[in-house]
Amino acid sequence: METSPVITLLTDFGQQDAFVGIMKGVMLRLCPSARLVDLSHETEPFDILGGSFLLRSAMPYVPAGTIHLAVVDPGVGGPRRPILAQIDDQFFVVPDNGLLSYPMSAGRIHTVRHVTAEQYFLHPVSATFHGRDIFAPIAAHLALGILPEQFGPEIHDAIRLPVPLARQDSDGTVHGQVIRIDHFGNCITNITRRDLDAFMSGERPPIEALLNGQPVGPLVEFFEEAGAGGEAGIIGSTGCLELFALRGNLARRRSVHPGAPVRLERRDRQRSPNISG
Amino acid sequence: METSPVITLLTDFGQQDAFVGIMKGVMLRLCPSARLVDLSHETEPFDILGGSFLLRSAMPYVPAGTIHLAVVDPGVGGPRRPILAQIDDQFFVVPDNGLLSYPMSAGRIHTVRHVTAEQYFLHPVSATFHGRDIFAPIAAHLALGILPEQFGPEIHDAIRLPVPLARQDSDGTVHGQVIRIDHFGNCITNITRRDLDAFMSGERPPIEALLNGQPVGPLVEFFEEAGAGGEAGIIGSTGCLELFALRGNLARRRSVHPGAPVRLERRDRQRSPNISG
Amino acid sequence: METSPVITLLTDFGQQDAFVGIMKGVMLRLCPSARLVDLSHETEPFDILGGSFLLRSAMPYVPAGTIHLAVVDPGVGGPRRPILAQIDDQFFVVPDNGLLSYPMSAGRIHTVRHVTAEQYFLHPVSATFHGRDIFAPIAAHLALGILPEQFGPEIHDAIRLPVPLARQDSDGTVHGQVIRIDHFGNCITNITRRDLDAFMSGERPPIEALLNGQPVGPLVEFFEEAGAGGEAGIIGSTGCLELFALRGNLARRRSVHPGAPVRLERRDRQRSPNISG
Repeated sequence: METSPVITLLTDFGQQDAFVGIMKGVMLRLCPSARLVDLSHETEPFDILGGSFLLRSAMPYVPAGTIHLAVVDPGVGGPRRPILAQIDDQFFVVPDNGLLSYPMSAGRIHTVRHVTAEQYFLHPVSATFHGRDIFAPIAAHLALGILPEQFGPEIHDAIRLPVPLARQDSDGTVHGQVIRIDHFGNCITNITRRDLDAFMSGERPPIEALLNGQPVGPLVEFFEEAGAGGEAGIIGSTGCLELFALRGNLARRRSVHPGAPVRLERRDRQRSPNISG
Repeated sequence: METSPVITLLTDFGQQDAFVGIMKGVMLRLCPSARLVDLSHETEPFDILGGSFLLRSAMPYVPAGTIHLAVVDPGVGGPRRPILAQIDDQFFVVPDNGLLSYPMSAGRIHTVRHVTAEQYFLHPVSATFHGRDIFAPIAAHLALGILPEQFGPEIHDAIRLPVPLARQDSDGTVHGQVIRIDHFGNCITNITRRDLDAFMSGERPPIEALLNGQPVGPLVEFFEEAGAGGEAGIIGSTGCLELFALRGNLARRRSVHPGAPVRLERRDRQRSPNISG
Repeated sequence: METSPVITLLTDFGQQDAFVGIMKGVMLRLCPSARLVDLSHETEPFDILGGSFLLRSAMPYVPAGTIHLAVVDPGVGGPRRPILAQIDDQFFVVPDNGLLSYPMSAGRIHTVRHVTAEQYFLHPVSATFHGRDIFAPIAAHLALGILPEQFGPEIHDAIRLPVPLARQDSDGTVHGQVIRIDHFGNCITNITRRDLDAFMSGERPPIEALLNGQPVGPLVEFFEEAGAGGEAGIIGSTGCLELFALRGNLARRRSVHPGAPVRLERRDRQRSPNISG
């Protein structure tokens, strides 16, 4: 027996209701051998880009052929389309609302299809829970071996939200922003290792990271280098700069929210520390 | 090899302890092929009816033969009985305290048994964790194929708590209540699609939903019809009326708790909007 | 086909990020038949002993051969070693920081190895997420049948943190402390059934438990004996004394934290109730 694909689940449904368990029931009824893995169900309600970022962070680490069932779906019941995308060696079953913005920016997009094959839906389709009635059964049928082209026609206008990128200005300063705050209060930025390498261009100048215009600290190689209670920057597990407080919660301490500006400057430059951004 | 049954888990144990994982360990030790699905572990501590509602909401969506292991058990260690019920095509292994009230009101009850076969328990049985010592091993033995009648004698006096039903008064007004608040702050009521159909009796009168005596808004077909920040009613995924605020949290905004009265009136009727309930 | 080992996961990663799902992806990519069980991901950030206590609490209830993947790892990226231990009939893949203190004090330690076989790691190894890059792939390779000795040399200096034990003083009073507070606010102490038996030495004297120097109540056989709102002590599911408030949250009510002193006295003794500890 061949092993059934892994199906990951990512939603903003939380865990106090039975919504996630119900989607799993739907899938196991159709595809008893499905292997189900929760990515997260604690995405902020309706935070499409937040969920999208998590999807991208998982892509390099799941088996080839993995099916991602992701439902952050403020437009449920309305005209937004259900889509099925193949990016790299993985499948995504999601509402067409930008939830694939990060995976699309990171991977190779093979096809995106508008899922119109209603024979694979649960009927009647409710107005409020397409995770159960549309997305879960589509993912399960895909796991069973139904071919992508059987779910609907290819489209080329799936919604992509702008993914914020870091930029370097003429004096070399790198400008980025916080794109996610993790469980530990670490502030994950959109400044990549590549951005940093360009910034440092061969030399190893002293660098200072500024968050909301305030100095945070140097770049370190591992957390404990920051010293007790110290703050610093580090290249985190997604390959991006993260700002942190050692064994503290930087985001809470400094009231940081996604979107907060981050700046990298050479320490030898003169700077005006009180001017934000 | 036949596929082993799905065992769902529903508790009020939360997730910071290892209680749920320990129950899974007990089951996998006895029945290595069990497929375990969490329904929820965030039921409010000791909220028997809340857990019962979640069980019912999952019933139509799990595979035939599913075993529901549900433990919301304020009387653990005392004289309350462990029971094994078969309702529709599913099994329930639970304390006898009303946790099956909703499933019993929704499905066909085949048998309810008092579980007395202590040879299937873990020994010594602790005073505080029958989920681990009684309910998990019973569910696992059931999954292994032990027949229901081997667990104990049939009983006919299992505890059923009253499940609140909506009613229509002589002038046609429908009176119900909020029975659950979900993760999004949507207020799920006990007013069913059938209640609504009776109310509308062929015509399509303008309807107004009142929550705690205050108007909420019209009934809509999908969330976004309510307009930005708008409030409205909708038939939700359980087939009951839900009141919501579009991309907001209605329960928090209006301080709604389960039990809050909900009323449906025709908009053409005269009403006294400030009189509650 | 032989059944693949169970791999449990215990971390302080929380559930809003995709960290746990990513570790599962890594393991399923390497070992598609792995059976994954979450113990808990809500251990307080960096609370090594708290996580260690949970590991111990699960040990008697998981299948032989279970692999515990546990990551509470404030020193990630620094010089602390990854280790692989065999204790009783189970394996532990963890950072060497004391996370095995409770399992080591409770079980028979066969071997502890420093994991040096970098060919089993994911490369490049990040500075911040060894759960993904080191511990998950080690656990998966172990599940695949790679022998423990292939992961690295045996060591004898793994870090063990002191596990607080209860003691009895010359007048017979038992002194212990709260070592964990569970989801229900029950205060789990380090006073074992054996300590209690020694205290009671054949007779059954009236006993009073004091928490932070204040009387809590008698010892009972099951929760409901405490009477509505009552407080009492009970031997809990780990075999230790727990202090609780019936259907209340004792820890919140009395502002109890781990480390709070607990004392058992005979009720017939004279006592000075206002002197703490």
